[in-house]
Amino acid sequence: MVIVMKPDATQTEIQKVIDRVEAVGLKAQKTVGEQHTIIGVIGDKTKLVNQPIESLQGVDRTMPISAPYKLASRQFRNEPTVVVSNGIKIGGKQLVVMAGPCAVESTEQIVQIAQEIKKSGATFIRGGAFKPRTGPYSFHGFGESALEMLTAAKEETGLGIVTEVMTPREVELVGEYTDIFQLGTRNMQNFYLLREVGKQPKPVILKRGFSSTIEEWLLAAEYILSEGNQNVILCERGIRTFETHTRNTLDLNAIPAIKELSHLPIISDPSHGTGIRDYVAPMSKASIAAGADGLILEVHHDPDNSMTGDGVQSLLPDQFDELMTDLRKLATAIDRSLI
Amino acid sequence: MVIVMKPDATQTEIQKVIDRVEAVGLKAQKTVGEQHTIIGVIGDKTKLVNQPIESLQGVDRTMPISAPYKLASRQFRNEPTVVVSNGIKIGGKQLVVMAGPCAVESTEQIVQIAQEIKKSGATFIRGGAFKPRTGPYSFHGFGESALEMLTAAKEETGLGIVTEVMTPREVELVGEYTDIFQLGTRNMQNFYLLREVGKQPKPVILKRGFSSTIEEWLLAAEYILSEGNQNVILCERGIRTFETHTRNTLDLNAIPAIKELSHLPIISDPSHGTGIRDYVAPMSKASIAAGADGLILEVHHDPDNSMTGDGVQSLLPDQFDELMTDLRKLATAIDRSLI
Amino acid sequence: MVIVMKPDATQTEIQKVIDRVEAVGLKAQKTVGEQHTIIGVIGDKTKLVNQPIESLQGVDRTMPISAPYKLASRQFRNEPTVVVSNGIKIGGKQLVVMAGPCAVESTEQIVQIAQEIKKSGATFIRGGAFKPRTGPYSFHGFGESALEMLTAAKEETGLGIVTEVMTPREVELVGEYTDIFQLGTRNMQNFYLLREVGKQPKPVILKRGFSSTIEEWLLAAEYILSEGNQNVILCERGIRTFETHTRNTLDLNAIPAIKELSHLPIISDPSHGTGIRDYVAPMSKASIAAGADGLILEVHHDPDNSMTGDGVQSLLPDQFDELMTDLRKLATAIDRSLI
Amino acid sequence: MVIVMKPDATQTEIQKVIDRVEAVGLKAQKTVGEQHTIIGVIGDKTKLVNQPIESLQGVDRTMPISAPYKLASRQFRNEPTVVVSNGIKIGGKQLVVMAGPCAVESTEQIVQIAQEIKKSGATFIRGGAFKPRTGPYSFHGFGESALEMLTAAKEETGLGIVTEVMTPREVELVGEYTDIFQLGTRNMQNFYLLREVGKQPKPVILKRGFSSTIEEWLLAAEYILSEGNQNVILCERGIRTFETHTRNTLDLNAIPAIKELSHLPIISDPSHGTGIRDYVAPMSKASIAAGADGLILEVHHDPDNSMTGDGVQSLLPDQFDELMTDLRKLATAIDRSLI
Repeated sequence: MVIVMKPDATQTEIQKVIDRVEAVGLKAQKTVGEQHTIIGVIGDKTKLVNQPIESLQGVDRTMPISAPYKLASRQFRNEPTVVVSNGIKIGGKQLVVMAGPCAVESTEQIVQIAQEIKKSGATFIRGGAFKPRTGPYSFHGFGESALEMLTAAKEETGLGIVTEVMTPREVELVGEYTDIFQLGTRNMQNFYLLREVGKQPKPVILKRGFSSTIEEWLLAAEYILSEGNQNVILCERGIRTFETHTRNTLDLNAIPAIKELSHLPIISDPSHGTGIRDYVAPMSKASIAAGADGLILEVHHDPDNSMTGDGVQSLLPDQFDELMTDLRKLATAIDRSLI
Repeated sequence: MVIVMKPDATQTEIQKVIDRVEAVGLKAQKTVGEQHTIIGVIGDKTKLVNQPIESLQGVDRTMPISAPYKLASRQFRNEPTVVVSNGIKIGGKQLVVMAGPCAVESTEQIVQIAQEIKKSGATFIRGGAFKPRTGPYSFHGFGESALEMLTAAKEETGLGIVTEVMTPREVELVGEYTDIFQLGTRNMQNFYLLREVGKQPKPVILKRGFSSTIEEWLLAAEYILSEGNQNVILCERGIRTFETHTRNTLDLNAIPAIKELSHLPIISDPSHGTGIRDYVAPMSKASIAAGADGLILEVHHDPDNSMTGDGVQSLLPDQFDELMTDLRKLATAIDRSLI
Repeated sequence: MVIVMKPDATQTEIQKVIDRVEAVGLKAQKTVGEQHTIIGVIGDKTKLVNQPIESLQGVDRTMPISAPYKLASRQFRNEPTVVVSNGIKIGGKQLVVMAGPCAVESTEQIVQIAQEIKKSGATFIRGGAFKPRTGPYSFHGFGESALEMLTAAKEETGLGIVTEVMTPREVELVGEYTDIFQLGTRNMQNFYLLREVGKQPKPVILKRGFSSTIEEWLLAAEYILSEGNQNVILCERGIRTFETHTRNTLDLNAIPAIKELSHLPIISDPSHGTGIRDYVAPMSKASIAAGADGLILEVHHDPDNSMTGDGVQSLLPDQFDELMTDLRKLATAIDRSLI
Repeated sequence: MVIVMKPDATQTEIQKVIDRVEAVGLKAQKTVGEQHTIIGVIGDKTKLVNQPIESLQGVDRTMPISAPYKLASRQFRNEPTVVVSNGIKIGGKQLVVMAGPCAVESTEQIVQIAQEIKKSGATFIRGGAFKPRTGPYSFHGFGESALEMLTAAKEETGLGIVTEVMTPREVELVGEYTDIFQLGTRNMQNFYLLREVGKQPKPVILKRGFSSTIEEWLLAAEYILSEGNQNVILCERGIRTFETHTRNTLDLNAIPAIKELSHLPIISDPSHGTGIRDYVAPMSKASIAAGADGLILEVHHDPDNSMTGDGVQSLLPDQFDELMTDLRKLATAIDRSLI
């Protein structure tokens, strides 16, 4: 960390800051510039995490030098993490594709979609049992009975289950059914929930908050990792910008960024990232070309009769099948392959 | 709602949409334009909330005409809501000021600050017992013992208590101590928490999500209102924009907007909204001039020794006192007054 | 400037960076941290402005310590700049109010509006002769004949003229008529235009780019100042954010920020900042309470028959008169006054 | 266009709006909803472009149904536009790659880079002669002599020239040298410049404004097209968001969006879009996978001695060569090819 003093900071103020840094066992080195004196802090900066350095008299601001997360960083672990679930490796050379409807609506629906996507090459079935919705009057999912329907689909097809958990007290319940927990974009900073899924061993897909920086996202992963669960899969799903033509702005820059900053696998969600069915295929390909380790996609065999408005971004099974064919070719071109 | 058909939509597709609308008991009126046919939907549009209209063949998009919230709207209730807590009215002609430290650190600290701010005219003491933090290694508050310290401050001064609740399972505990619940910016769309505070009667300060639109904010309020609790106080606390000089962009436009769209009271938080101590006083005045019903401010008598970095945006008791004097003059000029 | 080296930077790379810094006559001081070595640069950093330091091998990034603008900064000039035009001081204790229609439509129109606003206390008439429009098919203003209409309004009322200039080659023409040049939000980084108005002496209102940071805004002012024209008036007019309820997000935080960082006067434009007539009065008051030196407002006596869509944000003369009365009371409460 | 009346609009107000619409030769159809009456406008809505409908009494707001641009739309021209320059087709099945330094620094520099990139398969050399810079003290390019250096590189290699023009009065000069004009991100709404390049026949690369919506971008293209120049190439180059890790957020969603909304070709600029050398290759691949018609890339053989800071995002010739090899494989996988 570098502490920048105000142009008019006094020697006493500068010395007090240095004393404060040294009091917690760190070293301070002063550089006197033309306008500002700066103080470089040497040592483990987590010792300063609860010190109000910026409030001290004469301090203009502090500037971090190294990242605020540790366990999630490439410095901590240089080898890519490979998460294994239901016999499938996520984060290796092979690409994983998870697919399914926005919400689980019936056993027939979920089994049929699972069969379709399996045929095309998906390895996980996704579907919402507990649904976060912006307004209180929308359909919020069938809850536990939807978890049972997902289990039926798994038994039928062998596909692993991915489903969302929304609150700490349902982690245990959802964990009885799912193979992979999904944490939604609005819960990326639900710190109690992060800790709760961190205390159990099943993998967690951590969606990026729609207004979260990459750094905040890795800090959210750090919550899970610091509780002991190393099976974190990041998922880029679009950020909120001024552009309103697309529902969100799928930020593919985040893919090379995560690959540089972290060892965790990253997948992409072009369905929510664009919100427009016709953009899902091109943005799926773009995600893989950018280096993503997989995709999570909405597929519905009958979106016109789905129970949520998200059908508008769902692929039909035929479209999904065509996309999978295209992805196979694309994967080869970049020296990867589909599972 | 208006349904916009694609330029190449067929008569059959148009008719199917009309049938779908009429099937749920609504009326549909068609207008054939040069490029697009549009269908106006007449009646209670909540009947369409779980209908995937946008997925239907030939539909380009839908455009809402009226707001998606009801109980929170001026149409539902034209009179301003006045919330009463600890004998203080919030939302009437008099302005309320809540103040206190970011985190409750000790009984001595919170009692001293409570005494200082009471002397200057504040009517509520605020302080964090449970603290949301971006990273797992930061100080997360003293929890229940901090609630007891707040109670000591209340007993000493008579000030009402405002403190944050972070998860549904702590609503009961926090409710034993606090007069007003605070829901933080990261929890504005924690729907389980919204419902939980909606099921009990104490007032709730609902902070705007830092990337939430005004409409999403009112929909979050709707969750609380729809559970039966009418005592919702909105709080503008700054949104995330591209500007990095200030910690957030305090969006004062939201104040006249809320006054137009809703009957709920709205207060402003310039401490988090700017993140810079010297900007708190001008932005407090601006908030009141824009029509806010009150302020929630960080005040700390010793920010250099606080346990969180937020001291950098805390006023000293003397600065707070001077601001209160200025606000009294300002309030008179706009035909309001401080309590 | 602080240069942050990569964790794996070699001694040779570090030395090369130091050599590069010293080669342009600056001093370099090294601090060796646990992960990163950092190099503090001492001296006039403009010497580095065209040096590609960040490209050098082993460099992670650079972090500026002091502001990149000079003439616009408080460090350069601590006293507030007071701009004088048509006998009116802008930036002193008295507040200035500029008002008028979006576009000049006829002599009758502009003279009538000028008379109305003068009666209420405005000191400048504003109106567009050259209008920037998002699409090519909209009305782009009457050009030079509109400048003549503005002159008629000035002759009739004595009010100074404020009007926009859009391109370098029209600076001379517009300058023959106007008292103050306005540079619109889309031209804040039209560097040729900045230089051109910098080469002549008349005051310039520099509107903030709708997606410009405060730093970029002050750098744009620096272009004008560096050509010799010290009469720059900054104007906050709303930034682009994710919020769509208001046309822009009037960023009042920028007012205390500019007051801290710069000596230049700043006014506010709540008409464009909100885009909603009913929000103009509260946000005008808020602007003044936040410390603005004045306002620029749209006023039209007959918005239903105006030639641009901006009538929707124009005050009627009666509304403007009522606002001016309110502002006089508000100004007194904060120890300022209207001219 | 749909006109939404306020809930309390009177019959007289509604009728006045209908009269106004019909007065310009359009048809109006009324739909009376439970809260709002809406008026559908039938006919060529450009007739309303200068009518202040939203200001009329009783009007709540207007909602456009069809796009505000015509010549740029797929409705106007369904076949993809193919722009030809220096014998190269842009917008067809073959992908075009333009490359070169941020700024032209010397004949030796530009010739050497041109030779390198030609060897790897680029078809245009790019380089700045006139450089927009945020601050006045930075290097602004060598101007006309840089244009001569570009010509030398063209003569040596046969590569076409792409260079930026910043102001209307330099269009003629730059046009004497360049094959393709580039309009930079800050000039996307420099309407005089758009018109000026629209009046001459050479192709124009129109970079997206860093805070411009896709609709505004197509409206800017409409300015050029409406003057008669049909040779417009759109270029996505990153938008400004809250994320600060990358210099901009390269918005690849814009690629399928433009392909759906317009017939114009679109290329991508991952150098400015990410600002980070190591992200350029993955985001180049992602751009092509998303459907871009080509790339414009920064390549410098000696970024450590370049004259602008943008070397940090420049590829070295070897990196560029490797990327071109990868792109060739990728292009095949998506049924396209490199020129």
